[in-house]
Amino acid sequence: MKDIDFMARAIELAKRGQLKTQPNPMVGCVIVKNNKIVGEGWHQEYGKDHAEINAIKNCKKRFGLKKALKIIAASDFYVNLEPCTIEKNTPPCSTALIEHKIKRLFCGTLDPNPKINGKGIRLLKNAGIKTKVGLLSKECKQLNRVFFTNQKKLRPYIILKSAQSIDGYIALKNGDSNWISNSESRKDCHHIRSTVKGILVGRRTVEKDNPSLTVRLTNKELGIGKNEIIEQPIKIIIGNLKKSKENNKLFSNNAKVIVGSKLVAKKFKNLEYIQYKEKNFLEKFLKDLLAKNITSILVEGGQNTLNSFIANNLFDELVIYTAPIFLGNGSIKTLNLKAADSINKSRKLKTIKIERFKDDIKTTYYNGNI
Amino acid sequence: MKDIDFMARAIELAKRGQLKTQPNPMVGCVIVKNNKIVGEGWHQEYGKDHAEINAIKNCKKRFGLKKALKIIAASDFYVNLEPCTIEKNTPPCSTALIEHKIKRLFCGTLDPNPKINGKGIRLLKNAGIKTKVGLLSKECKQLNRVFFTNQKKLRPYIILKSAQSIDGYIALKNGDSNWISNSESRKDCHHIRSTVKGILVGRRTVEKDNPSLTVRLTNKELGIGKNEIIEQPIKIIIGNLKKSKENNKLFSNNAKVIVGSKLVAKKFKNLEYIQYKEKNFLEKFLKDLLAKNITSILVEGGQNTLNSFIANNLFDELVIYTAPIFLGNGSIKTLNLKAADSINKSRKLKTIKIERFKDDIKTTYYNGNI
Repeated sequence: MKDIDFMARAIELAKRGQLKTQPNPMVGCVIVKNNKIVGEGWHQEYGKDHAEINAIKNCKKRFGLKKALKIIAASDFYVNLEPCTIEKNTPPCSTALIEHKIKRLFCGTLDPNPKINGKGIRLLKNAGIKTKVGLLSKECKQLNRVFFTNQKKLRPYIILKSAQSIDGYIALKNGDSNWISNSESRKDCHHIRSTVKGILVGRRTVEKDNPSLTVRLTNKELGIGKNEIIEQPIKIIIGNLKKSKENNKLFSNNAKVIVGSKLVAKKFKNLEYIQYKEKNFLEKFLKDLLAKNITSILVEGGQNTLNSFIANNLFDELVIYTAPIFLGNGSIKTLNLKAADSINKSRKLKTIKIERFKDDIKTTYYNGNI
Repeated sequence: MKDIDFMARAIELAKRGQLKTQPNPMVGCVIVKNNKIVGEGWHQEYGKDHAEINAIKNCKKRFGLKKALKIIAASDFYVNLEPCTIEKNTPPCSTALIEHKIKRLFCGTLDPNPKINGKGIRLLKNAGIKTKVGLLSKECKQLNRVFFTNQKKLRPYIILKSAQSIDGYIALKNGDSNWISNSESRKDCHHIRSTVKGILVGRRTVEKDNPSLTVRLTNKELGIGKNEIIEQPIKIIIGNLKKSKENNKLFSNNAKVIVGSKLVAKKFKNLEYIQYKEKNFLEKFLKDLLAKNITSILVEGGQNTLNSFIANNLFDELVIYTAPIFLGNGSIKTLNLKAADSINKSRKLKTIKIERFKDDIKTTYYNGNI
């Protein structure tokens, strides 16, 4: 096996912590001696041991403490992210690696957290440990897109979603949009919902569609055990809910709802208002959401809301479901953006994935690099 | 092997005649005795022998005339299309099959040509030959979509093509559309051009873009021999070319150009005008094009032209290349159709194929059944 194979294995292990490590990143660690894996671990859950510590524990379990210490001191560590230097819930990993006098460290990327960024590597180097940064860096960044975005952009990772006709409309003139996309596409959207911490819509969508904004999938569909319960995303609304009623689906089951607006209107039990003085408070609101550990959000419309995110370049991913229908003029357009000056200067996204749900097409785009 | 395997083989053989048999359909024939193929043939080129005759010839070549006649008389024939009953360039196939006293005939579909439709089968039945119609009929119709459309709708097979931004625009306000789609998408479009008999655009597209409307691919890209020359599609324009000049790219190399319009304006060497009295002459024009053996056309724009085809439900295929860019408001929309009354009643297409060319997405839809 080669270096990149061991790093690929670390990434694979890291993924096992998906959705459970936030706001921490997913991290996997592989310990290798003489080209053989002698220990593996990953960060399993927020607040619990980090990947490096789990890999060391795994090695000790495999070989017994005494033999493991000898092995580790002659081993290379492969980790997708720079070892941490901060003592929070657990002692810093860089200290543990130094104490174990490991031979070499291969890491995928530096930690984007400005408090760590490069510090972990420096500590190891100063302790005489050889380090190499950048192995499968693209894949490592990709793995932790949410974490990198949180750290670098100081806001949640933002996915915009829309379901439209071939001619680019999200609803008829009268607002009717039930249903443009088919049931399989809508189910897929619930899968996206299950991967984010919050679902955001504009207040008009609440008034018009009375949405639940919940993940409605069976445990089997979610791929979790019979008795497991998923954490429902927090519901986030932009604009005050003056026309909403307490019996709106949004508030059922005492779900937590956060509203960002200039004016504070009705207040129900689990409704939290964050009030802003400025007209364009989107960026501030997003920062405040991250402070509440909402590390990722799915924005589901309507047109005004989607446009304000695109116009302000506040999005990381755009997901469009296109149904094979025409809605025609006068219908409500998916996007309503300012004209581009030229085709060359027009905003460009990166096409990431094309999927098909019966006759609907789902396209996933990335906006810029992380 | 099963019945459907032999029919699948017939379809495979038929495809070898692609582009060369028009206005005839593509037909393949497999002769089977005791579950073994004893003869194969296909219609290779317009005016030459039909598939059944070629398969019989192939059998005779394999086994010698005397033995072959015995074999054929005890064999089943698999043909994707009903044997013809018309003597035109060649004697009718149904007569040949009767003369050879074949055992059974399996055919994929009846011939949609009203002069044949079922007559070939009746002739065989009356001669005591067992027949079965409908084996892989969907695939057989699919194979000859162009021919079925020509026969049933009395017009060319129509492919509409557009290259658009994510937000559904084909050009900036100033008309600039160079280039929305990338070079790979544009190359793919030349491949589509190479499969049709005519390329149609509106006169405004000619005036604005000065297009060549030619297939510009190397022989290698076209998958043909070094010295082969493809027949360029005929250029077809809707609306009179009053503003066009003789040095327009359209007229280079003495290419044939057909114009359908109410008024006849300039006349150049290879420019043929078809004049119509009525304002909406699209359907008549299409019928006239078929009469000139233009069995299939690719409609490449602009907006008005595409819309008139969609609004009149005169299309069989819609191909959209979507580039990952936004062009914004005020740009020229891809489609400009009348509003749908309801989502349920909105026009529905069938999604056939999704392809990717770098970051562009190509979607192919079918409009209705054949």
